[in-house]
Amino acid sequence: MIRPVSWQDGGLSILDQTRLPGEEAYLLCSQVEQVADAIRSLQIRGAPLIGIAAAYGIALAAHGDQDQLDERVARAAALLRSTRPTARNLFWALDRMVARARQGAGARELLAEAEAIHREDADACRLIGEHGATLLPQGAGVLTICNTGSLATGGIGTALGVIRTARSRGNPIAVLACETRPLLQGARLTMWELTRDRIPATLITDGMAGALMQQGAIDLVIAGADRIACNGDAANKIGTYSLAVLARHHGIPFYVAAPLSTVDTSLASGKDIPIEERGPEEVRGFGGVLTTPEGTSVRNPAFDVTPGDLIDGIVTERGVMRPPYHRALQEAR
Amino acid sequence: MIRPVSWQDGGLSILDQTRLPGEEAYLLCSQVEQVADAIRSLQIRGAPLIGIAAAYGIALAAHGDQDQLDERVARAAALLRSTRPTARNLFWALDRMVARARQGAGARELLAEAEAIHREDADACRLIGEHGATLLPQGAGVLTICNTGSLATGGIGTALGVIRTARSRGNPIAVLACETRPLLQGARLTMWELTRDRIPATLITDGMAGALMQQGAIDLVIAGADRIACNGDAANKIGTYSLAVLARHHGIPFYVAAPLSTVDTSLASGKDIPIEERGPEEVRGFGGVLTTPEGTSVRNPAFDVTPGDLIDGIVTERGVMRPPYHRALQEAR
Repeated sequence: MIRPVSWQDGGLSILDQTRLPGEEAYLLCSQVEQVADAIRSLQIRGAPLIGIAAAYGIALAAHGDQDQLDERVARAAALLRSTRPTARNLFWALDRMVARARQGAGARELLAEAEAIHREDADACRLIGEHGATLLPQGAGVLTICNTGSLATGGIGTALGVIRTARSRGNPIAVLACETRPLLQGARLTMWELTRDRIPATLITDGMAGALMQQGAIDLVIAGADRIACNGDAANKIGTYSLAVLARHHGIPFYVAAPLSTVDTSLASGKDIPIEERGPEEVRGFGGVLTTPEGTSVRNPAFDVTPGDLIDGIVTERGVMRPPYHRALQEAR
Repeated sequence: MIRPVSWQDGGLSILDQTRLPGEEAYLLCSQVEQVADAIRSLQIRGAPLIGIAAAYGIALAAHGDQDQLDERVARAAALLRSTRPTARNLFWALDRMVARARQGAGARELLAEAEAIHREDADACRLIGEHGATLLPQGAGVLTICNTGSLATGGIGTALGVIRTARSRGNPIAVLACETRPLLQGARLTMWELTRDRIPATLITDGMAGALMQQGAIDLVIAGADRIACNGDAANKIGTYSLAVLARHHGIPFYVAAPLSTVDTSLASGKDIPIEERGPEEVRGFGGVLTTPEGTSVRNPAFDVTPGDLIDGIVTERGVMRPPYHRALQEAR
């Protein structure tokens, strides 16, 4: 079992995802600043996992004197909130931790709360896997994007949890994974997880998805989400929206899998989801090697927003929500 | 002016495109085998340029004794035909050279024929640019894919020739280029050409195209082609078909620009266009850097086929063909 974050010896052990698949290296964070750096630098990534790591970050900050605990927690929460803007789970987990601290929880209780968030996410993944597996026809060609597995969550994953569950139930689905430029989470992380689990999978470049749908190799697309609005609009890794449009054109179902902690009930639609624009060097090169002329202008939005009306179902721990999403998501929260 | 192939000192000087943009290195081919290797290894690429280089390859093979010229030309043509399967221009140029040899042309005449093919392609590019530039609204956001410029042709390019011509006529179009995984011809070659020409352009990963269309940043897509069937179905770099579907979904025109030497009148539709599947290492990493777990399974079709009914116009040296294409393309040839 992959443990991308775990509480060890009074600190947070994290698997440095920027060094995968070449190297499985762990770092021990004893300060909240290190957790914030790890989130900012993508050593920890994946919306649910960012939330879990941030919760442990609060537990780290709470450690020590009960006296100024509230202040330390507030400062730590502000720091962690500033790391990345899009994933809802980060803010959801921090709100929950800060509320516990305001209720008078001490360091020990805050660590227990972080562990509860971690455990609940593992449970949510298991349930998402069970609900989602029922959507996958026997032997279907299933395309996914980015990494939504154990490296992105507290458990078996969201979209990748659905794939794992279907395989473990004996459904011989053919898994296809988009490499997911610019940071190649599909090529580096999803293929690493699937290789470890001995789940056969085929890696494609992001531009191949349409042609493979045209050829009948893909029966279904399933992606994760970083933030979901009340109407089902879902922010996810850049490239997801293109897959949803391509799926619709080919009459192929497109599903999103995410825990309810990803749902932002304050947003009526996806148009107000903040989309992180990352540094140009990620697009200017590949794996640290510059592949473009000096000074090349780029765009680098890390996420895009798929409208709810292109999403055939949202798989959560409470079951598969179907459009119109507004009521289903409100009731489930 | 970039000269990706040129006849010099009785040999063919070629710009090694695999080393761009880092290094501008030229190789001199004195044997047809070297030309074949250069095409196979993508030191020379781009459908029209492959045809031009192959024609010069025949001229190299013809050099020498008139005695066994026919046999040498036939052997050279067979070798060159085996290099890459998809680009129509390769077979078109070889057919033309072999026909000239059969008519009794000697080495000098065959070189003149190769030079004519080269010159005619430059003329075709100029005319494609003129016809195509009329399609670009003032200040439009224009998305292209792969490289279709001077590095792909004998002149200013096809789709990139249209972009160049529009800019040189003072149309302040905003150029966007897909990086074009796996071999990054957009990032490496198109950005290199546009930087040299001081044409402002923005590089995006292939997965960003849909999101940028959704945001209104793209008004038009223009791509090249490697082979066009009578009904307008067009094989082009993998990822082109996805762009055509995305363009249609967003109500954005999608154009193909190519000389008539790209049209294969023997094919009624695109379903019989042979699609090259290249080696797995191109998808497993980039530039020799492995980014996937050992032994990762991949797909690597180098091209896809866009159905003619997703193409709003085919820009050729004879003007802009409009659907239905069958008659227009037959008449133009």
